[in-house]
Amino acid sequence: VAGYVGGVVPDYQMAAWLMAGYLRGFTAAEAVALTAALVDSGDRLDLSALAGPTVDKHSTGGVADSTTLIVAPLAAELGLQVLKLSGRGLGHTGGTLDKLESIPGMRTSLSERELLDQVGRIGLAVGAQTADLVPGDRLLYALRDVTGTVGNVALIASSVMSKKLAGGAASIVLDVKIGSGAFAKDLAAGRELSELCVALGTAAGRSTAALLTDMSQPLGDHVGNASEIREAVEILRDERGGRLRELSLELVGELAAQAGVVADAVDGRTRAEAALRSGAGLERFARFVEAQGGDPRVIDDLDLLPCAPVRHRVVTDGPGWLAAVDGEAVGMVAARLGAGRRRKDDTVDVAVGIELPVKLGDRVEAGAPLAIISARDEPAARRAEAELRAALAWSPDPVEGPALVVGRVTAG
Amino acid sequence: VAGYVGGVVPDYQMAAWLMAGYLRGFTAAEAVALTAALVDSGDRLDLSALAGPTVDKHSTGGVADSTTLIVAPLAAELGLQVLKLSGRGLGHTGGTLDKLESIPGMRTSLSERELLDQVGRIGLAVGAQTADLVPGDRLLYALRDVTGTVGNVALIASSVMSKKLAGGAASIVLDVKIGSGAFAKDLAAGRELSELCVALGTAAGRSTAALLTDMSQPLGDHVGNASEIREAVEILRDERGGRLRELSLELVGELAAQAGVVADAVDGRTRAEAALRSGAGLERFARFVEAQGGDPRVIDDLDLLPCAPVRHRVVTDGPGWLAAVDGEAVGMVAARLGAGRRRKDDTVDVAVGIELPVKLGDRVEAGAPLAIISARDEPAARRAEAELRAALAWSPDPVEGPALVVGRVTAG
Repeated sequence: VAGYVGGVVPDYQMAAWLMAGYLRGFTAAEAVALTAALVDSGDRLDLSALAGPTVDKHSTGGVADSTTLIVAPLAAELGLQVLKLSGRGLGHTGGTLDKLESIPGMRTSLSERELLDQVGRIGLAVGAQTADLVPGDRLLYALRDVTGTVGNVALIASSVMSKKLAGGAASIVLDVKIGSGAFAKDLAAGRELSELCVALGTAAGRSTAALLTDMSQPLGDHVGNASEIREAVEILRDERGGRLRELSLELVGELAAQAGVVADAVDGRTRAEAALRSGAGLERFARFVEAQGGDPRVIDDLDLLPCAPVRHRVVTDGPGWLAAVDGEAVGMVAARLGAGRRRKDDTVDVAVGIELPVKLGDRVEAGAPLAIISARDEPAARRAEAELRAALAWSPDPVEGPALVVGRVTAG
Repeated sequence: VAGYVGGVVPDYQMAAWLMAGYLRGFTAAEAVALTAALVDSGDRLDLSALAGPTVDKHSTGGVADSTTLIVAPLAAELGLQVLKLSGRGLGHTGGTLDKLESIPGMRTSLSERELLDQVGRIGLAVGAQTADLVPGDRLLYALRDVTGTVGNVALIASSVMSKKLAGGAASIVLDVKIGSGAFAKDLAAGRELSELCVALGTAAGRSTAALLTDMSQPLGDHVGNASEIREAVEILRDERGGRLRELSLELVGELAAQAGVVADAVDGRTRAEAALRSGAGLERFARFVEAQGGDPRVIDDLDLLPCAPVRHRVVTDGPGWLAAVDGEAVGMVAARLGAGRRRKDDTVDVAVGIELPVKLGDRVEAGAPLAIISARDEPAARRAEAELRAALAWSPDPVEGPALVVGRVTAG
């Protein structure tokens, strides 16, 4: 890794090495060594100046997953220090940074000093990961992407954990998604990835845990950038329930437990829910927005967020139970509306998106509201409607919705 | 392969693909397809203008292996048409081209027309493989060399056979070496490689066979360039026996059998030996040398060949039987004297080398001649002596020498 980052080892040798590792796998010791080499390839954040317990969380990636927007202010309410670095990445929607930047004035390019100062003051900050942090992972990931070597548990775990370790937090909680669109297609694969991540974190002296969570459908009701901010604010206002709220509370509970500020994750979750119900989490979110230059009035007036010109309502064809959702396909519909990025230099349209509040196991009546598509024009909206309908399957008989948190992995 | 040669597929993707193939292996159909793709990557020789049966032979590489110099003229005596293309390559000594060029005036850079004309006239020609022939193999081999993906049976077989197929001969005989220094460490590995090569040749409509031969020691008595010409001439003069002579006759017999000009390989070998004993093979060699601009008087006067200034005699320490020879190490001694090439642009010193006429199972008396080292100066000769001694192991008890031809693979 050092040779590759230093330009001594050429692309083709690293590519051959990646394929060898991809096919043969890595021992736990090899994964630990790889992770350490990735961390050593660049700078690390030094959080030692922060008074409270530092925490970080990472999701392996899902559709309509804006947990960070809810988890960070609630965790700060519980006395945790959240310095979250995020990439922009490629995906169905933009990353956390793109979502935040849909708030007028919001700034995410903060210096390390600004980030640390802000966390010290208000308990949370969200900034862009710089190129100096884990450059080895950035280079390796780009090479994996073009050599068919992405889907290996140790390569994924070392990539995820190297960034968390370089980020400096003492406690780390991972949200490992299970589902056909995720790397972990089933619980066994999710458990393997989680156990390796927890082992890598533990080997580096961090208190680490993982929640295994269902990704058989979009997590929240909104797929988009501004619209995911809208949903997060509605949850922090305690106006909206659902799986996104639920998972956010579970993650805060687990973070608090790993940081040792509560007796256990159940206790942590109870305190997180209290912070949410009291409105303290919403206030903390407003302070966070203000601290990063955004308009804090957004928590009271969601119409301050950008809104696409066309709002296209989709209704159901007939009565039935929602039996299957192709979450990847729903994400792709949003991406084609303009919410995502295919290439690094693509611009994200933060105003477009899909609101799909129906979840697996829900019954709908014929002609009932199914979704709202926010688009630039009518043809785009109609195309999105057709694609969205194709991504859903209905049953005439009752269907049971899946559990949300399906497993938990902790050290030892 | 086409994409790689065309510059569309980058090095790193081909490297990942090579490693995947190296670790996972190839089915027979995949190996056939790869070989065809390699052949299709460049030009092919068209031998259809030649009247007699065209043949080609290939050795997987050994120390002191100058069979081509003996096989080609004897095969021509049997009415076969031998258009042999050779690379320079890297190795303990130079390739066949370097050996031939130690003959004053000898030219190996012949055009396709010159090669075909010469074969038509005298039955044999040896030229340099051009960059236009199987460029895919050249590029792939260079990449395998730097990505740890050389030692895979299908990659080796497709590389060998693509060059033979592009060379255009109707019949092909392979000399597959078995030994610790070869790819095929044991008979089973040699048989696997041979069977795949024969299958690839047969699939392409060529009459193909392989001899599996021992490489537990240098084949001939000379390791060097000019000195291997010397040895070949002495064999063609019928002045010298031994394993190099023996294997050359076996290969000619097999070539004649594959070409269908004799009843079987035993008959072919008998005829090859007759051509050798009669001096016809030597005369054919002289005509070949003359045709390519070399001095044909070399067959009568070996002192026309370059000779190193220092001839250093090595005698045995004590009596005993030669129990083991590290052939690779002996080759490396010659290479360090200057006989070989480490990098493509290194110059080969054709005059230096080692004569080591003692073979496994031979008994030597104390103080008997063991070897003659031809070197540029005394220090180099003394260093070579020490290295050579370290490459030999002696037994106080009788040792049985290994068989030479240990297996044979033919189609069907």
